[in-house]
Amino acid sequence: MRDVAVIGIGQTKVDEHWDKSLRVLAGEASLAAMADAQITQIDGIYVGNMMSSAANQQLQLGALVSDWIGQRFTEAVKIESACSSGAAAFRMGFLAVASGEVDVALVVGVEKMTDSPSDEITAALATAADADWEIDHGLSFVGLNALLMKRYMYEHGWQGKDFAEFSINAHANAVHNPYARFRKAIDLNRFINSPMICDPINLMDASPIGDGAAAVVLVRDDLLPSNEAKILVAGSASATDTISIHNRKTPTWLTSAEKSAQTAYEQAGFKPDDINLFEYHDAFTIMAALSLEACGFAERGQGPALAKEGEIKIGGRLPVATRGGLKARGHPVGATGVYQIVEVVQQLRGEAGETQIPRHEIGMAQSIGGSGSNIVTNILRRES
Amino acid sequence: MRDVAVIGIGQTKVDEHWDKSLRVLAGEASLAAMADAQITQIDGIYVGNMMSSAANQQLQLGALVSDWIGQRFTEAVKIESACSSGAAAFRMGFLAVASGEVDVALVVGVEKMTDSPSDEITAALATAADADWEIDHGLSFVGLNALLMKRYMYEHGWQGKDFAEFSINAHANAVHNPYARFRKAIDLNRFINSPMICDPINLMDASPIGDGAAAVVLVRDDLLPSNEAKILVAGSASATDTISIHNRKTPTWLTSAEKSAQTAYEQAGFKPDDINLFEYHDAFTIMAALSLEACGFAERGQGPALAKEGEIKIGGRLPVATRGGLKARGHPVGATGVYQIVEVVQQLRGEAGETQIPRHEIGMAQSIGGSGSNIVTNILRRES
Repeated sequence: MRDVAVIGIGQTKVDEHWDKSLRVLAGEASLAAMADAQITQIDGIYVGNMMSSAANQQLQLGALVSDWIGQRFTEAVKIESACSSGAAAFRMGFLAVASGEVDVALVVGVEKMTDSPSDEITAALATAADADWEIDHGLSFVGLNALLMKRYMYEHGWQGKDFAEFSINAHANAVHNPYARFRKAIDLNRFINSPMICDPINLMDASPIGDGAAAVVLVRDDLLPSNEAKILVAGSASATDTISIHNRKTPTWLTSAEKSAQTAYEQAGFKPDDINLFEYHDAFTIMAALSLEACGFAERGQGPALAKEGEIKIGGRLPVATRGGLKARGHPVGATGVYQIVEVVQQLRGEAGETQIPRHEIGMAQSIGGSGSNIVTNILRRES
Repeated sequence: MRDVAVIGIGQTKVDEHWDKSLRVLAGEASLAAMADAQITQIDGIYVGNMMSSAANQQLQLGALVSDWIGQRFTEAVKIESACSSGAAAFRMGFLAVASGEVDVALVVGVEKMTDSPSDEITAALATAADADWEIDHGLSFVGLNALLMKRYMYEHGWQGKDFAEFSINAHANAVHNPYARFRKAIDLNRFINSPMICDPINLMDASPIGDGAAAVVLVRDDLLPSNEAKILVAGSASATDTISIHNRKTPTWLTSAEKSAQTAYEQAGFKPDDINLFEYHDAFTIMAALSLEACGFAERGQGPALAKEGEIKIGGRLPVATRGGLKARGHPVGATGVYQIVEVVQQLRGEAGETQIPRHEIGMAQSIGGSGSNIVTNILRRES
């Protein structure tokens, strides 16, 4: 396989974009990434999206995007693995370039969720879970995460407020990110007094949906000048688990996160200690905790401790959600995995402004589809 | 890139499968392909599906399939490009193996359409077209094809009955295919007297939807014994065009079919005359004609002539729809592209029974997403 470099990034603000259609959002991020890469010709387009069928009555986003951004006739497909669709699209773009088939790939994640009534979006989010064995029995996607969180609290003795630091950190970082949906800090008091959504998940445990698009340009490393600094894909892996949570032996352990992270570590030749920042999938605070543990950053059951000790902040041992995370940057589901990559690249380039981490050579992004049924882990490395 | 071989095929009958869920259908085809390949371990799963969100309230089919077929934890994603989703999934599986990342890939196309009311399926099919610029104005997917066919008839002087031989040939071949939805022959009289669906498309111009799944196993050629006969992917390419038809300079010429076929020919080192059979995308007879012309098998405007001259029959110059095509085998949209590959492999292996073509070394499959907005062409070659 050939080495692959990320040479361009672009994004829209995560927001309620009433004035921008799906193609306009995707186009804005894509053209920004191409301008950043100083590239005008793309050989393959990989679109990450989850719910455009339900929310926008539009499939075939490959063709939609390729035409809109002036790349008519270019190969283009959509990749879907629920909430990790963006990360899965990144991985497919990576494989297309690594195979030698495609020289320059564009990966764009896009989602437009706020035009639809919230009950329709709740139903669309539930398609990430098992229709036959979970959703048909009345569960929602938040309900599944609430069951997981309750079980986790019971097993490890945590209380709801012990998850507060995940969200406080995310909001503190989002203040400095112009692309984040919620650019205001929250404190412990605000967290504790938030309305309960689905016990024990309160409003501040949960990430907000949104409209948005993020994009990156990938290129074969051997086509780049060898004497310039670059950002390479050092590890990339994906693993599935049962789609229904009750079928897992240990529901409070994300085996697919562990497996995809282990494979990515091996490919990159790194161990958890080598990672300078981690853009994790904090769709709910319980997922933040489980992801930290499965990837080897915390002992089993001790994810919240890492947050309480301040180790996840910008100056800490493992900065996470450095641009706001899903919690405060926002979670336009099929786009989120690409936002994470964009944010890792910002950090590795040293372009993260007030939330720039001090040491920035190796960054990891992990995206969770469903309740851990499809998890993609990517590790990027700066080579100077 | 590494050479890639197809070593296993499996399929379900295309039918109304009231007793089989999405996972059961996908599992049946997948396990049949794995048994045929004598393989029990898969490294990557690529699912082609278009409308499971709308028709089955289920996304995340990668995890759904990997768990159900006993490949829990394996990488798995869904690929979507509307009606060519199955072919696009085949191409992604091919790239994953060609890259060296995956040794053994399973590609499965699955669609379950007959549980839903027909107005919902009509709306779901319309998501293949442009939501903003076509569907919102009242067009249906059949309506778009009817406009194309009317224009084509006007430009080239054909009448509705001139398209009959496409459907007569497909039905004649389906009689001998146990997996086909409609195993009965039709004659010119039946064609001419069929009810009009959307002028000039009558019932016999249009392929039937259905439930079904088809699967293939791909493996790196260098892992196979070198002295055995094998079927290799000789060419694989994909191209997009504008998603809305009115944006094309020449709506009656499938540029994306031409471009993807040309690239595949070049990769394989073949020209149209070298192709022994062509599994084309006869969702409507107009698409059969346009596909034949764009791929260089007929002059512009002369696709129907090739059919009228009998050249598309089993003994003809270019047998097409040899197992029934979309018209009579049936068109479970996201699965169709994989059915086509399975059928080409049956022919190349000499396992096509009463519809076996005499010379069977090189076969081509072409799958059309939308009204030509995303077209995938794959060429397979038998090496003995």
